[in-house]
Amino acid sequence: MTIDASEDGQTFSEEERAAMARAVSLARRGLGSVAPNPVVGAVVLDRAGRQVGEGWHQKAGGPHAEVHALRAAGPLTAGGTAVVTLEPCSRQGRSGPCTQALLDAGIRRVIFAVPDPTLSGEGTAALHAAGIDVRSGLFEERAAEVNHAWLTSAVTRRPHVTLKLASTLDGRIAARDGSSRWITGPPARRDTHLLRARTDAIAVGSTTALIDDPELTARSATGRPRTRQPVRVVFDRRLRTPVDSRLASDGAAPTWILTTRSAGDKPLGKAELITIDPGSGFLTTSLSELYNRGIRSLLVEGGATLAGALLTEALVDRIIWYSAARLLGQDGAPAIRGLDVPSCGAAPSFRVLGTRRLGEDVRTVLEPESARGKQE
Amino acid sequence: MTIDASEDGQTFSEEERAAMARAVSLARRGLGSVAPNPVVGAVVLDRAGRQVGEGWHQKAGGPHAEVHALRAAGPLTAGGTAVVTLEPCSRQGRSGPCTQALLDAGIRRVIFAVPDPTLSGEGTAALHAAGIDVRSGLFEERAAEVNHAWLTSAVTRRPHVTLKLASTLDGRIAARDGSSRWITGPPARRDTHLLRARTDAIAVGSTTALIDDPELTARSATGRPRTRQPVRVVFDRRLRTPVDSRLASDGAAPTWILTTRSAGDKPLGKAELITIDPGSGFLTTSLSELYNRGIRSLLVEGGATLAGALLTEALVDRIIWYSAARLLGQDGAPAIRGLDVPSCGAAPSFRVLGTRRLGEDVRTVLEPESARGKQE
Repeated sequence: MTIDASEDGQTFSEEERAAMARAVSLARRGLGSVAPNPVVGAVVLDRAGRQVGEGWHQKAGGPHAEVHALRAAGPLTAGGTAVVTLEPCSRQGRSGPCTQALLDAGIRRVIFAVPDPTLSGEGTAALHAAGIDVRSGLFEERAAEVNHAWLTSAVTRRPHVTLKLASTLDGRIAARDGSSRWITGPPARRDTHLLRARTDAIAVGSTTALIDDPELTARSATGRPRTRQPVRVVFDRRLRTPVDSRLASDGAAPTWILTTRSAGDKPLGKAELITIDPGSGFLTTSLSELYNRGIRSLLVEGGATLAGALLTEALVDRIIWYSAARLLGQDGAPAIRGLDVPSCGAAPSFRVLGTRRLGEDVRTVLEPESARGKQE
Repeated sequence: MTIDASEDGQTFSEEERAAMARAVSLARRGLGSVAPNPVVGAVVLDRAGRQVGEGWHQKAGGPHAEVHALRAAGPLTAGGTAVVTLEPCSRQGRSGPCTQALLDAGIRRVIFAVPDPTLSGEGTAALHAAGIDVRSGLFEERAAEVNHAWLTSAVTRRPHVTLKLASTLDGRIAARDGSSRWITGPPARRDTHLLRARTDAIAVGSTTALIDDPELTARSATGRPRTRQPVRVVFDRRLRTPVDSRLASDGAAPTWILTTRSAGDKPLGKAELITIDPGSGFLTTSLSELYNRGIRSLLVEGGATLAGALLTEALVDRIIWYSAARLLGQDGAPAIRGLDVPSCGAAPSFRVLGTRRLGEDVRTVLEPESARGKQE
């Protein structure tokens, strides 16, 4: 077994590094399907360092990644190594503690990428106590990125909020006459469907629900609706969503309408009403409620007023901004409304995580400056 | 001599390809210094294909690139090959026709990248007539890109206009209180100084001259003013530039003020006044006047009104847009004023030539859709 360069002062073999890279890929498959759980991927290596089993957490209530991988490896686990993207759990959940499953399978070494902030080290401690060689930090950044929504929500106790904006380069989302269709091109729209597929819920404000009457479903590359659909959420303080809107009536995915109007918790069409105490902060209470219902990642798709309100209250964890190579001029509708910035010094600022061309649009991923270092 | 893959059906040796790549690099050195001439680079290969001389056009009135390269090669030119980024000239200019210089030096083969649109094939014809083996098209796209401003202006008979914009992601250039300093970061500002160094002239509108009182000089990476400074131009229909403004008084570079007000062609401080017939189209006539004075590339740095006017009249050939990862909200000053876009279908649209992160800003280069294919 070749010993490779160290990471955080620890040494990992080539086989272990390859196994973790694979585990991260496996974890990604769970995005959008495992809430309220994290996505996790696992690979089991036998005594000789060969990959003999792999798995990922596929849905809440189902087996954890480690269990899938151990099952796949069968009797070859004895004396082997488990390579996992997240610290193995040590608590009796719906599927039993993974630490015990690893011990039962005769695993001698466990490598995980990222500590589970909800465990406070208990998983590691349980394995240590049983004499297991436990290592952490291999590909930590990559593994944290695939799980970043869950890791953020574990700390903030509200869903991780990704704000998706699609504007012209001059920051407009509609022309003077209100027309707004196809500001961005097909590659950006396909990318949006991928974002939707990987999130637990999609949200819009009530004006968008009223004016655009969106469907908010995730479609595959071929344009067909995906099997699993994220929950659709409307931030609708004054309950303006029409009962005959697609969101309230088409049944294509669950729809939750967050409102301060008491409707006696009666549904609006096929949509479920969630009543928020009008005396509380509407957005923060709404997000808490979504968290309590298991939502860990929320993709906010508009409109400008909801975007401005979330930014004002610093409730945005990431922005994905599609800038179309078009101009709509100063009479076009602004991408963000209600964000009050008196001076340049008060401007919310972001870190650019990446930018790339996507057809004739530019896709930029941003994180609030206040989050600097968090993902590094 | 190894014969390499063909380009446009012609074959070029490895040595010739390397020579053209070098010639393009050499040509680039002339940017900003050779107006009204094109930038040109040349490499001479001896009979055996070895590079024995190189040169570039350094300033108008000075020797052409071919002459520099032939001189450097000395007696080794006999039977050799000249590799040039632009079709050699065949006319008696200030420095004699290059075709004759090539013949006098005993060159047997000439390879150029891009035809000179002002020659209508005369250069090639003159060489052919003398029995020279003439080939074209090698690295044509790369060579056209380094010369794109001159090539565009040769066709339009006005300077190639690059519009530089620096806004927040939501398309704002100043906050509600008017503050606008440091919207973009140091890497974007350094990049702007490089743009300035490579252009013949820099322009602003009169409001910018009045409010921002900019210096508009090109500085090196160390912050010192460069030896050669582009001409500073103010589009100032109503002659609002103050006589004590930096542009009119500091003498750091020539300043030309384009205005419809007749000042009897008296200077304004150290600035030269250029009177434009008020009955003509101000922008198009101003650009013609700049062309007649030898300006082939113009970098427009603001403000929003001048940008909007140039875009409205389709006088922008390229946009370089620095988008800062900041937000200023809907009360911020728009990046573009006076551009009237009634509906999405009427939105000016662009082709994205490239996008990259530059510090915490995103730099996107765009070309009008109408120019599609021109540079391809």
